[in-house]
Amino acid sequence: MTQSPPPYPADLLARAAKIRLACFDVDGTLTDGRLYFDSEGRESKAFHATDGQGLALLRKVGIAIAFITARKGTIVQHRAAELGVEAHIGVADKLACMDAIRARLGLAIDEVAFMGDDLADRAPMRVAGLAVAPANAHAWIREVAHWQTAACGGEGAARELCDLLLQAQSRVEALLAGVDAR
Amino acid sequence: MTQSPPPYPADLLARAAKIRLACFDVDGTLTDGRLYFDSEGRESKAFHATDGQGLALLRKVGIAIAFITARKGTIVQHRAAELGVEAHIGVADKLACMDAIRARLGLAIDEVAFMGDDLADRAPMRVAGLAVAPANAHAWIREVAHWQTAACGGEGAARELCDLLLQAQSRVEALLAGVDAR
Amino acid sequence: MTQSPPPYPADLLARAAKIRLACFDVDGTLTDGRLYFDSEGRESKAFHATDGQGLALLRKVGIAIAFITARKGTIVQHRAAELGVEAHIGVADKLACMDAIRARLGLAIDEVAFMGDDLADRAPMRVAGLAVAPANAHAWIREVAHWQTAACGGEGAARELCDLLLQAQSRVEALLAGVDAR
Amino acid sequence: MTQSPPPYPADLLARAAKIRLACFDVDGTLTDGRLYFDSEGRESKAFHATDGQGLALLRKVGIAIAFITARKGTIVQHRAAELGVEAHIGVADKLACMDAIRARLGLAIDEVAFMGDDLADRAPMRVAGLAVAPANAHAWIREVAHWQTAACGGEGAARELCDLLLQAQSRVEALLAGVDAR
Repeated sequence: MTQSPPPYPADLLARAAKIRLACFDVDGTLTDGRLYFDSEGRESKAFHATDGQGLALLRKVGIAIAFITARKGTIVQHRAAELGVEAHIGVADKLACMDAIRARLGLAIDEVAFMGDDLADRAPMRVAGLAVAPANAHAWIREVAHWQTAACGGEGAARELCDLLLQAQSRVEALLAGVDAR
Repeated sequence: MTQSPPPYPADLLARAAKIRLACFDVDGTLTDGRLYFDSEGRESKAFHATDGQGLALLRKVGIAIAFITARKGTIVQHRAAELGVEAHIGVADKLACMDAIRARLGLAIDEVAFMGDDLADRAPMRVAGLAVAPANAHAWIREVAHWQTAACGGEGAARELCDLLLQAQSRVEALLAGVDAR
Repeated sequence: MTQSPPPYPADLLARAAKIRLACFDVDGTLTDGRLYFDSEGRESKAFHATDGQGLALLRKVGIAIAFITARKGTIVQHRAAELGVEAHIGVADKLACMDAIRARLGLAIDEVAFMGDDLADRAPMRVAGLAVAPANAHAWIREVAHWQTAACGGEGAARELCDLLLQAQSRVEALLAGVDAR
Repeated sequence: MTQSPPPYPADLLARAAKIRLACFDVDGTLTDGRLYFDSEGRESKAFHATDGQGLALLRKVGIAIAFITARKGTIVQHRAAELGVEAHIGVADKLACMDAIRARLGLAIDEVAFMGDDLADRAPMRVAGLAVAPANAHAWIREVAHWQTAACGGEGAARELCDLLLQAQSRVEALLAGVDAR
């Protein structure tokens, strides 16, 4: 889970300050990687409420969000719809997908963050302006990440990226002041 | 999970001794924050048996209980109904909700406890007589909490608050004596 | 999860050597205490395969097994049926239930083990010949237990009790020899 | 979860270099051992995305894969079908099952790996060319394993075996080069 905002390294804050689009892998990043199957063929997975809160705050300050997953199925769309986030399902080439979203939004690559945990995330993470891995990402991914969160995927890792972006873009004070003024 | 009752600080016991209403956030507080989605659009979440036992004991000694969640859906109502607890679902303003319950019960604000873990809980926790956060609450919440439990949300954190209230109100000895007399 | 058999204390082995009936609480003992609710009112809980293996071995060596739970519902019966174990559901008085099973089987109380984690388990655990608590049992339970497992409930705690009984009754060597002879 | 590839012992690499067939127990090995039951009699279990990625890579380099489980039910078949892996369900004798697959593929026993965590896996693990146990395997299994993963079952343990095989068979560099060339 998210901890007190660490004293982020200066170069990390510099990267985070530019981000206008945050892309998230799903299994192992927004979830703990578990794929539940039941005896009738249904599949489930678990997202985390604290990540949902973070994503809502990103939207509030105008940062675009995209879920990009290689896996097929309807689960991700249910969660994405609830959060008002665009979801790309069954993506064979995550780098091309990220780049298409970037181009559509008219952004430069250093305005794009990508968070992922396994092999299919390596290509987009090698080029994104900010590449973030959950604590338990595969070694092949950790070695291309600019930053690794303290939390594991599905347990608040994505929230840590949200918190970093809000902090780097000086949004936290106003956000809490708005809450506390009530 | 709950540990041996720690030697609670005196000021914490003083706050806890007054509580007549205990309000609980749901996701991340009564649950571990996981939001399960299945391939047919169903949602699930996990409450904890030890929290249920604690809430039953609070009811037994006459402390009112309310679940207050921003999230919509019927899951919380199922669990609340089972426990005989009132549930407020889809609450946009948790401070107003807590205050309305307090007023209805004719209580002062220092007779109200609020336990939560994320941004929407900050406003009620800043005014409640006793504000408690699970071990893994967000930093924005931990900084307004009077006390943080040893357990994470959904793993016995709420039970720790129940235990504190029972201890502060000198209910434990009689309760165990009742069990042991059998 | 179960670890290498620890050098059990002599008095624990003495108690375990006599056991002919092993009673198990369910939520928090055979499960991790999580009670899953879905948006259509269904409930779920998770048992553990390693506990199932241990219970099968107890049956094989002739130790009777009973699940005793205060909670209502059909889940426990599904798991108990699969394991060929008797299940007592919605039990208000676990001490009376344990005692009735004991009497029916013609056993003395020092031939009965009870494993539980919370208040409703305290009464039977105070009288059972062997009272065992999972690592994360409530303090009120740990103080009446003869032994506490290394594993938490639902993560192999029950298996540790099975292993203790098999060891104390000198069943392990023959059991492994049977497997290894193949 | 998988960590940076450790400096594998030389004899482990020698065993792993020969493997052409990797057999996996399911509950406690490809899952965390939890068996979910719902109030309508359905069963669920959770596989892990990172294990799925590893198994896909094994297939890519031509290593055969088999799931071998004593437990009955359709869940494993759903996961196996998705991964394109053969699944053997309700297997009373895992050693015989492993040996039949081995013979069918025309392999020697030192070309077969078996990963398991509990008693039913002991027989095949005692003869397989490479026997691997998850971190939380039962003591009876750990004592017959050539190697124990850092991760627990269902949390990336199987991926560690996949990574070991890829490393021992000098497949990693080309694999990452293929990804990075894009």
